[in-house]
Amino acid sequence: MRASYYHGNQTFRTAPAAMPTAQAGEALLRVRRVGICGTDLHIYQGHLDHRVPKGGIIGHETFAEVAEAPAGSGFAAGDRVVVEPLRVCGQCRACRMGADYICYQLKVLGVDVPGGMQEYWTVPTARLIKVPDTLSDDHAALMEPLAIATHDVMRAQVKAGDAVAVFGGGPIGCLIALVARHRGARVLVLEVNPFRIDLLKGFGLEVFRPDPGAAGRDVVRTVDDWTGGDGADVAFEVTGNAAAVRLITEVVRVWGAISVVAIHAEPMLVNLYPMFARELTMHGSRLYARSDWEEAIRLASTGAVPVGPLVSRRIPLEDLQKGMEEALAGGPVMKVLVDLG
Amino acid sequence: MRASYYHGNQTFRTAPAAMPTAQAGEALLRVRRVGICGTDLHIYQGHLDHRVPKGGIIGHETFAEVAEAPAGSGFAAGDRVVVEPLRVCGQCRACRMGADYICYQLKVLGVDVPGGMQEYWTVPTARLIKVPDTLSDDHAALMEPLAIATHDVMRAQVKAGDAVAVFGGGPIGCLIALVARHRGARVLVLEVNPFRIDLLKGFGLEVFRPDPGAAGRDVVRTVDDWTGGDGADVAFEVTGNAAAVRLITEVVRVWGAISVVAIHAEPMLVNLYPMFARELTMHGSRLYARSDWEEAIRLASTGAVPVGPLVSRRIPLEDLQKGMEEALAGGPVMKVLVDLG
Repeated sequence: MRASYYHGNQTFRTAPAAMPTAQAGEALLRVRRVGICGTDLHIYQGHLDHRVPKGGIIGHETFAEVAEAPAGSGFAAGDRVVVEPLRVCGQCRACRMGADYICYQLKVLGVDVPGGMQEYWTVPTARLIKVPDTLSDDHAALMEPLAIATHDVMRAQVKAGDAVAVFGGGPIGCLIALVARHRGARVLVLEVNPFRIDLLKGFGLEVFRPDPGAAGRDVVRTVDDWTGGDGADVAFEVTGNAAAVRLITEVVRVWGAISVVAIHAEPMLVNLYPMFARELTMHGSRLYARSDWEEAIRLASTGAVPVGPLVSRRIPLEDLQKGMEEALAGGPVMKVLVDLG
Repeated sequence: MRASYYHGNQTFRTAPAAMPTAQAGEALLRVRRVGICGTDLHIYQGHLDHRVPKGGIIGHETFAEVAEAPAGSGFAAGDRVVVEPLRVCGQCRACRMGADYICYQLKVLGVDVPGGMQEYWTVPTARLIKVPDTLSDDHAALMEPLAIATHDVMRAQVKAGDAVAVFGGGPIGCLIALVARHRGARVLVLEVNPFRIDLLKGFGLEVFRPDPGAAGRDVVRTVDDWTGGDGADVAFEVTGNAAAVRLITEVVRVWGAISVVAIHAEPMLVNLYPMFARELTMHGSRLYARSDWEEAIRLASTGAVPVGPLVSRRIPLEDLQKGMEEALAGGPVMKVLVDLG
């Protein structure tokens, strides 16, 4: 079998690997598809070298088939599954209060410990979720980001009739927009990449392209006009961009909500005055509970959220590094899948 | 009668004034006590010159007696009242959704329009709230800041058993701490002013004095130890200080809440990473609904929240400017009341 190893310095190399052996409670998976995520791009650039070891195997958006599973586990060879890529401590305050997906000692499979960028992979059966045959292989690989989006929309309490502004129309922003629309919300996506703007419009989403020279005044005015002067009910920050963070509190209505989805490793300037004046709420949204995965699978397999157009292309495992380079270049790409056959 | 007028340039002057005439729906009040608030200190320093006109009359923490009231208003001469110092539009999104105290066109009496720093004052009877005889004159003047505190604690959903960290032990921070403790929370106040630390300890509150040279590490470690590694359930930002804002997301437990009470006119650096990693919630808290006043009056008049020790001294109207200077100097002072007799 083959695996792709992280070597630091923006380098991945695919090499032969020993077939892994399943431990007690684990299944052996034949990996079929692995999505490349924004977190993977952070890893590629070295931002997570304190978590990802040299020689590590990334990949946390995985669709696979079960090759072997323990008797009585509820899984059998041939089962089509996705992987909830989490290892939790079970002891900390988060685990004790039912928030184990944000465990204080959380290990993410494909970040802190080996992930799916290998032909065969051993994973605890407790972290496998079966997907229906109505969900294609490519679509199944999108269940991890879609579970992020269902979780984000749930936590922001988006409801029918809400005006929802999504800052950033990459894969996660696009999926948040689609889930929010499915909930009955009106959605406006703020995005600058022309390829992504076309893709978003292809979904029938409203899109505004901010003028970088307008210092955000055009965004505030646009959302204001779009909501008749009220402000958005909910705004999602999915850009990771300082200008968006600084602006986002200015577009939300009284008692409205801001969801921080993007990762901000450094302290960011936030305009707290509207937080105070309009009694806004801002919350972080990180991963997902099992129910968010179930919702994602239901929405995608019924076609309620059409995920197919997000797949820009499939590449072989050997091209992982090239795929990273292309994704970072910011060109005509939404989601890239590594196709292991 | 006399009134104190704002002349800009850190200047207040007391001068004779014509007796005001109540319009339809208004009562004529004989003002008895007016508290000096942090907002008043902002006005004194010119920070709110875009809202407070030259020749304006400040004062929004007012206790008064009714001198004259319209027949059928429910008020009569001699009634002891406090003033909810708000004028709202009734039309905007906030008013329409029952959040009129954060009206998009809110006018605050004593900021945007004349307030209580005058011997007689006309106010719509709809904004008067009677106080019981069990509440002394001085204590009644503290109902406005206490209503801020009951509102803040309500919005943060503090409950029995919670570990609550209050950044800043001035009048509002102290009252938040007392209300939270009354709710059954454990409270730790972070304060640097020695006079205030002694006063807080006199209430039986736990206090930690951060070392300015420790860059906040001592605060994080202290709250961590105090909560057995979990983090605080709720943290209140009542300092207005950049170091506190930057730090506050690091002391809260998974799914915990941060309440932004202080006014931050400029964008502030916020560490959003814990917001994401622990799925924290941060919300702004500004003024109060009528129910928050009722709760404040109940808590103070029954002694459940002992407000008396907050009154550092009473000064005559003529000394308003001197009172401002002393309060700004950061010395041995908590709450100063202007005593109009």
